[in-house]
Amino acid sequence: MFEAAELGQRVSKRTYTAAVPKLRSEVLQAHFALREARVPVIIIASGVDGAGKGEVIHRLNEWLDPRGVDTYAFWKNSDEETERPYYWRFWKALPARGRIAILFGSWYSSPTVRRVYGKLSAGGFNRAMDRIAFFERMLVDDGALIIKLWYHLNRREQRKRIQQLEADPESRWRILPTDKKHLKRYDTFIKVTAQVIRRTDVAYAPWHIIEATDRRYRELTTGRIILRAIRERLKRDSLRSSELARHRRLPPAPRPPAKLDRVNLEARLAPTEYREELKRYQARLGRMMWEAYRKGVSNVLLFEGWDAAGKGSAIRRVTQAIDPRLYRTVSIAAPTEEEKARHYLWRFWRHLPRAGTSTIYDRSWYGRVLVERIEGYAEAHEWRRAYAEINDFEEQLSEGGIVLSKFWIHITKEEQLKRFRQRQEVPFKQHKITDEDWRNREKWESYALAVDEMVARTSTESASWTLVAGNDKRYARVQILKTLCRRLEKAL
Amino acid sequence: MFEAAELGQRVSKRTYTAAVPKLRSEVLQAHFALREARVPVIIIASGVDGAGKGEVIHRLNEWLDPRGVDTYAFWKNSDEETERPYYWRFWKALPARGRIAILFGSWYSSPTVRRVYGKLSAGGFNRAMDRIAFFERMLVDDGALIIKLWYHLNRREQRKRIQQLEADPESRWRILPTDKKHLKRYDTFIKVTAQVIRRTDVAYAPWHIIEATDRRYRELTTGRIILRAIRERLKRDSLRSSELARHRRLPPAPRPPAKLDRVNLEARLAPTEYREELKRYQARLGRMMWEAYRKGVSNVLLFEGWDAAGKGSAIRRVTQAIDPRLYRTVSIAAPTEEEKARHYLWRFWRHLPRAGTSTIYDRSWYGRVLVERIEGYAEAHEWRRAYAEINDFEEQLSEGGIVLSKFWIHITKEEQLKRFRQRQEVPFKQHKITDEDWRNREKWESYALAVDEMVARTSTESASWTLVAGNDKRYARVQILKTLCRRLEKAL
Repeated sequence: MFEAAELGQRVSKRTYTAAVPKLRSEVLQAHFALREARVPVIIIASGVDGAGKGEVIHRLNEWLDPRGVDTYAFWKNSDEETERPYYWRFWKALPARGRIAILFGSWYSSPTVRRVYGKLSAGGFNRAMDRIAFFERMLVDDGALIIKLWYHLNRREQRKRIQQLEADPESRWRILPTDKKHLKRYDTFIKVTAQVIRRTDVAYAPWHIIEATDRRYRELTTGRIILRAIRERLKRDSLRSSELARHRRLPPAPRPPAKLDRVNLEARLAPTEYREELKRYQARLGRMMWEAYRKGVSNVLLFEGWDAAGKGSAIRRVTQAIDPRLYRTVSIAAPTEEEKARHYLWRFWRHLPRAGTSTIYDRSWYGRVLVERIEGYAEAHEWRRAYAEINDFEEQLSEGGIVLSKFWIHITKEEQLKRFRQRQEVPFKQHKITDEDWRNREKWESYALAVDEMVARTSTESASWTLVAGNDKRYARVQILKTLCRRLEKAL
Repeated sequence: MFEAAELGQRVSKRTYTAAVPKLRSEVLQAHFALREARVPVIIIASGVDGAGKGEVIHRLNEWLDPRGVDTYAFWKNSDEETERPYYWRFWKALPARGRIAILFGSWYSSPTVRRVYGKLSAGGFNRAMDRIAFFERMLVDDGALIIKLWYHLNRREQRKRIQQLEADPESRWRILPTDKKHLKRYDTFIKVTAQVIRRTDVAYAPWHIIEATDRRYRELTTGRIILRAIRERLKRDSLRSSELARHRRLPPAPRPPAKLDRVNLEARLAPTEYREELKRYQARLGRMMWEAYRKGVSNVLLFEGWDAAGKGSAIRRVTQAIDPRLYRTVSIAAPTEEEKARHYLWRFWRHLPRAGTSTIYDRSWYGRVLVERIEGYAEAHEWRRAYAEINDFEEQLSEGGIVLSKFWIHITKEEQLKRFRQRQEVPFKQHKITDEDWRNREKWESYALAVDEMVARTSTESASWTLVAGNDKRYARVQILKTLCRRLEKAL
């Protein structure tokens, strides 16, 4: 795989000096065009130790407009990072539309190194590669340009380079102890890397292998690769509408099983029974949340449901039971500017809880396949691929040891009308009924279909939906508390 | 101080039930008005253990519109927090304009507890109180409403309450081991608290002491205090313009000493000498940054200067020397929506480096007293108080063990003209010259005055300015590298 990067390619000083001004000016123009087109760019700089990645990054910061570039080194992790699912650190670093993120170390580093040192099985390695492919596909679908660079040195060159750095007291500090450790594993490292590249060298995010022996060659080549990648990406943008048209012609999905209809909305709980059960399960939940804290088990709870289904009051019955130090509630409203400039899952990733604590989402990422679908805020190809993206996201939560509980609170259309009217009569509830609620109500059938499809497509083993019978608020609240206790009992 | 909160005040169930609907509706209306007026609100809930603060917070979340409220518990710190200046955690939690943050634990907790346990001297305690007063004043000046609630129980009531919680297996988990530890120190705790309240009970952020024995009394009282505070704050808003007019009539500050004029712009460095010195100091800086990493010493570097003074290229000479894992560059451009919704220092706090690493600000918080002053983006009363705010901020950096280096790169007006013209001739530099640069140039004299005032007012012991002679770029770069090395040597 690396033969083409062992040809001893060099660029003379003269050629380099002659080529740089034009290249630099073109790269800069391309950068401005990207900003204009609001394309987020991720440049991954990886390769063997001693290949001069750091120097290339400095050069890129010189050639590009540095105000539009952020460089991230993934290296030592903070406990904020280690206490959350692995990809949290990468989501934090994703560039806003129109910005460039240069990653020094990336989602490739850990699986590669762990595989080299035998700490990752072949199966685990395969899963890690699948996750990477899915992740990059998702970002590209969302409009990102991913440029993956691999800087290669053959074994002899690497050794020579490290020796040179070591010989000079002014550069010796650049060598980390791990560099020399890796040096000994050169062959294994190259073998694993070849697998990594083969598995993840895809049309939407191809690898570029660059011979790194000669500084001038690697800089010019890097600049040219980036320039070409940007130009191709911008050209593709103009083709985009016809691609999208293709997506739009996809036949609608078959009607999903009507799960909602099977919720028993007759279920009721008498007031006295309710008070007892509420007290019992709240106390149990409160105790278990402390136990979860001690064991480092996190919770993610999310609440969806019809307008006036009682989400707010159900959430309060849950939070009343939990020590305020152990949870945070996040209400999902219109995204902020910083959130809109990124993949729609970004705003949910950023609120994930630390080990032992909980995040309660009042509405959630399912907005993508509910309101955004029905109101047309998301295009068909966007919300259709969201099911897979959500399933992958939730799988990562579960792999990260997070207990996920998803509630859809169901009521009948008649019950909703009754509650709308009641709310209009209570002064401190009037604000809860807006024209929008009445408009949503007219789209009841479309929403019901979307909910059924959502439940069908996102009820996975680790993340099943709980459909709550909400016509009786008391019943609903106790059902939610019971479910939470049961899930936690299983997890602890 | 707490006599008025030991009267045994109670509210009957009947009175409570009759009062709540009206109060609730008024509180909610007030919340909407706040949102409309874009006032950020901070509610601090503190008091003796067992006073039911958690329950009050739940009630507030019920009465207010929970979508506009964030609750933060300051409790266990992450290493992300402990590795940064103490107030970083609080800045993270500051509400955006129009939102409410309820703080459970706050900037009062640590100084109080440490004083009770004798871990803070009288002097240290005084400094902590001064810092709090300054911080709250700054937030209020920026438009915030701060509501400080203290829930009181006398010694007997506190003991009773803890015993009650303990007796019931369903509530026993609520008691933390620290609660019982604090119980023994009741008298000291009350004494210290009285000092805290006396020192920080100010007109712009008064304390409210609430008798906490009776649940209904403490809830109603809390609701009424919050309602009154909001209403008063909104009334004040309509008076604001006349207050501001007073500020506008302030006489201008006396002309500051003309420090800029004294920079020797004749200083030059020959090319060969430059290359040697550059290499030497870059190598030294690189090594020292690793040493700083090992010792946990952080750096904050900031660069200001005239347009075309060579900030960008000087920063590159610095970053070339440092391992990319050890620093981050932050380019300050127009603030994002999330940033605009908060105090102007918020966007700088958020990028502070972790222990051992560095943040390099390309332009900085000094924009407040430079461009914002000259262009009128900040009102006179805003940029005038910014000097004190900045000095306090930088003092906190220095107390947090951060080495701060501030550079103003100075050039003559003629040199700037020469560079503007040169830039227009180089294709990849043309973008750096915009109409705005020419417009700024016309305001040279106003900027010079602002720079002189900035240097005079913000050159403190721990944060002195380095005025860099920038007419010769080589000289400037070496001067900067030398200064950094010298500062680090002193610090390590």
